[in-house]
Amino acid sequence: MNPGSPSKAPSVAAVDWGTTRLRVWLVDEAGKILAERRGDDGLITAQATGFSTILEGHLAAMGAPEAMPVIICGMAGSRQGWLEAPYVTVPAPIGAILAGAARIPGQRRDIRIVPGLAQRQADAPDVMRGEETQLAGAGLPTKGRHLVCMPGTHSKWVLVEDGAVTGFGTWPTGELFSVLAAHSILRHSLGEQPKPVASGNAFFRRWCEQALADGGDVTSRLFSIRAAGLLQDLKPDDAAACLSGLLIGGEIASASHRYGKGAASVVLIASGALGALYTEALGLAGLAVRTVDADEAVRAGLIEAARENGMIAGSGVAA
Amino acid sequence: MNPGSPSKAPSVAAVDWGTTRLRVWLVDEAGKILAERRGDDGLITAQATGFSTILEGHLAAMGAPEAMPVIICGMAGSRQGWLEAPYVTVPAPIGAILAGAARIPGQRRDIRIVPGLAQRQADAPDVMRGEETQLAGAGLPTKGRHLVCMPGTHSKWVLVEDGAVTGFGTWPTGELFSVLAAHSILRHSLGEQPKPVASGNAFFRRWCEQALADGGDVTSRLFSIRAAGLLQDLKPDDAAACLSGLLIGGEIASASHRYGKGAASVVLIASGALGALYTEALGLAGLAVRTVDADEAVRAGLIEAARENGMIAGSGVAA
Repeated sequence: MNPGSPSKAPSVAAVDWGTTRLRVWLVDEAGKILAERRGDDGLITAQATGFSTILEGHLAAMGAPEAMPVIICGMAGSRQGWLEAPYVTVPAPIGAILAGAARIPGQRRDIRIVPGLAQRQADAPDVMRGEETQLAGAGLPTKGRHLVCMPGTHSKWVLVEDGAVTGFGTWPTGELFSVLAAHSILRHSLGEQPKPVASGNAFFRRWCEQALADGGDVTSRLFSIRAAGLLQDLKPDDAAACLSGLLIGGEIASASHRYGKGAASVVLIASGALGALYTEALGLAGLAVRTVDADEAVRAGLIEAARENGMIAGSGVAA
Repeated sequence: MNPGSPSKAPSVAAVDWGTTRLRVWLVDEAGKILAERRGDDGLITAQATGFSTILEGHLAAMGAPEAMPVIICGMAGSRQGWLEAPYVTVPAPIGAILAGAARIPGQRRDIRIVPGLAQRQADAPDVMRGEETQLAGAGLPTKGRHLVCMPGTHSKWVLVEDGAVTGFGTWPTGELFSVLAAHSILRHSLGEQPKPVASGNAFFRRWCEQALADGGDVTSRLFSIRAAGLLQDLKPDDAAACLSGLLIGGEIASASHRYGKGAASVVLIASGALGALYTEALGLAGLAVRTVDADEAVRAGLIEAARENGMIAGSGVAA
């Protein structure tokens, strides 16, 4: 809430509802954010407590009117969520994706969930849910060919051509880091609680460059991190930086190979420390980077979805 | 024990002592196996119970004389083992590796542990412990260039030139399969207890061929297994075959790229179902395979180590 601006009535609630957390924004008719609320009651909690109960609790705490519509993106729309919002098959224009939001039956309010995307190629099946909304809010030009990177647990790379998603892929980089750090032999190298890797780290840079040179082959170097601990006295925090550089460099090499033909630049939708690491790694790969803040992108995408679904008016620029 | 052959006195006990299990053979002066015993008291158990207690228990149960010497290979020689048998740095002749066995002090018997191998290149550090003994027992020609694959939890690929190890690498293929199946999002795709993959499986073959074509880049296709479950109704046992094909194909592509320059054939040291899977995958990669049974190789290597350390006579052909 910005107390300095003239008070306006909210018109729609926008909800980013992921696996472990949720964020709610109240938005006015012009697409301006009036209030924000965050909770740890993501999909996993909601499966036990009930999606409606959790949502209404947050809306009541924010003083939202009873009839106000709600637009939702994220894992709440998955098979394990509130209602499965069917996947839209790519290629698909971004606007059409948003307009296909699925309405939840039996609710007092008009509550809709943005669909995910499915790539149904026999040899490269893939899905996304939540990132399509970030993509819609990234302010991509409606013309031209754009390569988009959305890093995270399951990093998504998306090819957007003339405003339509024409293909995408998933690299489970964040998950590989967590699973290998906790459950593989590398746990002996990284220790119990490896310090988060900061950009500028020399180990991160060296292993990232090596992975870029190896063209996406990361499995050949995983065990080297363990061996470097035994033979070269590599320290746990440095080992974590090596693993991070190896996996991120490998992701970029692999995705560039698949999508980057002729691409000299990437739109990076990310925030905070992860955004800084990817900016550095993309730079090492020789790619120019335009960064869009991930939090702002999902908000803007939800507002755009509210417009596409007639919940608020017009087609003004998102706040 | 072969009751049909003339009874001979054992001269040395040979022990393959791994992380979770151990095998003991009594061997006569000519290098002939007289008796075998297996136990689940590998390194992990021995750390608690005591290495000497476990070894003497097995030897007593086999009726081994008190003064009989013992040759050991495997993780018992690691830093967490009975005694750290220092690594031999490659390049190194295989015979010299075996001859460098480290004697355990303060024992009634002459007990020695075969050293592991270390590759100390700054950009490709690596270690092995146990596989060097299999390698010594694989009956490689003393001349020429030979590429050796030893698949497992941590698959090793070794380049042997004129009887010397000149380089090696580790691909943690078995561990990646276990860790991803149990702890990543793929656990939803593979189910609780995926059936072991048999050779000839169509999913294994297709994903292996794809991974071979992708040149060792496996991370780009991991999530496709999950997506194929959601979009193409891929069944759990088939998903396990996909993951196995992807990881084994990726390993072979990556290792061939690193070591296979000009190599048309591979010596595969493996047993059972894993040996059959790798034989199939190496065939898909267009490589001719000569298979050596892994159990026989480690026995023969230990007997060779006993000879190199003067525990039994001569330099006859291993049994």
